[in-house]
Amino acid sequence: MKIFRKIKELKTHLRPLQYSGKQIGFVPTMGYLHRGHLSLIEASVKENDITVISIFVNPTQFGPNEDLASYPRDEKRDIELAEEVGAKVAFIPTPEEMYDNALTTVKVEHLTQQLCGLSRPTHFDGVTTVVTKLFNIVHPDQAYFGEKDAQQAIVIEKMVKDLDMDVTINVCPIVREEDGLAMSSRNVYLSEQERKEATMLRKSLLEAKEQIDGGERDALLIKRNIIDRINNNTSGEVDYVEILNKETLEPIERIEGKTLIAMAVKFSKARLIDNILIE
Amino acid sequence: MKIFRKIKELKTHLRPLQYSGKQIGFVPTMGYLHRGHLSLIEASVKENDITVISIFVNPTQFGPNEDLASYPRDEKRDIELAEEVGAKVAFIPTPEEMYDNALTTVKVEHLTQQLCGLSRPTHFDGVTTVVTKLFNIVHPDQAYFGEKDAQQAIVIEKMVKDLDMDVTINVCPIVREEDGLAMSSRNVYLSEQERKEATMLRKSLLEAKEQIDGGERDALLIKRNIIDRINNNTSGEVDYVEILNKETLEPIERIEGKTLIAMAVKFSKARLIDNILIE
Repeated sequence: MKIFRKIKELKTHLRPLQYSGKQIGFVPTMGYLHRGHLSLIEASVKENDITVISIFVNPTQFGPNEDLASYPRDEKRDIELAEEVGAKVAFIPTPEEMYDNALTTVKVEHLTQQLCGLSRPTHFDGVTTVVTKLFNIVHPDQAYFGEKDAQQAIVIEKMVKDLDMDVTINVCPIVREEDGLAMSSRNVYLSEQERKEATMLRKSLLEAKEQIDGGERDALLIKRNIIDRINNNTSGEVDYVEILNKETLEPIERIEGKTLIAMAVKFSKARLIDNILIE
Repeated sequence: MKIFRKIKELKTHLRPLQYSGKQIGFVPTMGYLHRGHLSLIEASVKENDITVISIFVNPTQFGPNEDLASYPRDEKRDIELAEEVGAKVAFIPTPEEMYDNALTTVKVEHLTQQLCGLSRPTHFDGVTTVVTKLFNIVHPDQAYFGEKDAQQAIVIEKMVKDLDMDVTINVCPIVREEDGLAMSSRNVYLSEQERKEATMLRKSLLEAKEQIDGGERDALLIKRNIIDRINNNTSGEVDYVEILNKETLEPIERIEGKTLIAMAVKFSKARLIDNILIE
């Protein structure tokens, strides 16, 4: 696997390949790869000639009191894992390489103002700006994102459409631990006790789905059940539980059409997210 | 010349040409072409295999009380003129084609908050967003902008650098009428009397340059002279006269290094801008 740390050198490597007709798949990551990331890389390897990954803990998507400094990193292991599943190029820039007195921001309104955008008000501007930069550097034909960050995927799809970017966005299913916990680099922050409690996120979402499959349509009632289950069975603090139209991310009162149930729960050192899509 | 009104059709036309190695030059315009625009097209034709122009009166760069509705248009003449000087492709979209429920904005901070950004606070967000879209649609190797919109050129150069876009920005000299007035589509708004008075913009800038060449270094004094000349010799109202560091657009007190003197003057129906670069 080839490793690049400079924007210019990566561009110089990729452009001739692209002009010779190679199809490029791209998986942007913040590193500390788990099976969720690897499933994205595998999907890209299957569908493209060359898979590029980026490993960049992007400072601009962290708030001032968030876990930027302590975010887990293991570059050597990341490179080995990505290479094993077939990635051919890794881009690992420094923050200085990415943001040299930068003044430019890409912002998606509305879709970013709720859910994670409420407790992380500058988060999505950081995401959309860095993803625009990465797309402009890599020029991928296809890019791969995880369904776990459902709001992020919806925001990026909107950005790509609004700005006429030439890239197909693929959103891949959540990869879970055996007990149902969604894979996350932040799971390492959990204490042993919290790790057990955290399975309640997935459980409460599955129970909600069962209720809906059983005919329940009252979104407020379903939401309240989920919150109760989390509060009664974990030490975590609910940041949000929302039931939304999947396209517009508008909260809904009655379940109909494509519905997203999304949640964020704060444990002592880790804020976990999970979601379920109801068709 | 080929004319496209749909984003997808233009992309479908251009991509194979680009993959076959053709160099694309791009001149974005709001139409009503004058010799200033034509000089940009000519520069592009000279330096590229294929020159694409866009004609789009971009609503998002007009403020609520500005001249969007009355902005002069003459598509047929624009197409003839552009073809005469060698443009091969024109992209002429509708606002609906460009902004279909769009929520995404590209914003350059700081450089956009002064000069024209003061009296037109949303103007540059409109410019940077539409130029990003146009660059993503056309994928030009080189793009051409006029020095008349000095702040716009500086903002776009910064955006291209910050977002790692693969395009070289060329800023071409201001084209003027015989009496020195900078070419502008908005000059048609001037009354006969105003048209005469408007030559004072250029004259006052040349006088400032003379003063500086003669050794004057006090920016405030030079600025005051320019304002006095405009006020005493025209019916126009000075929107701003600023003397700035050319790179940072910071106002300066003493003239040194690359200096930009920029002005905007409002006549009854036309707001005119002009500038001079002092090396």
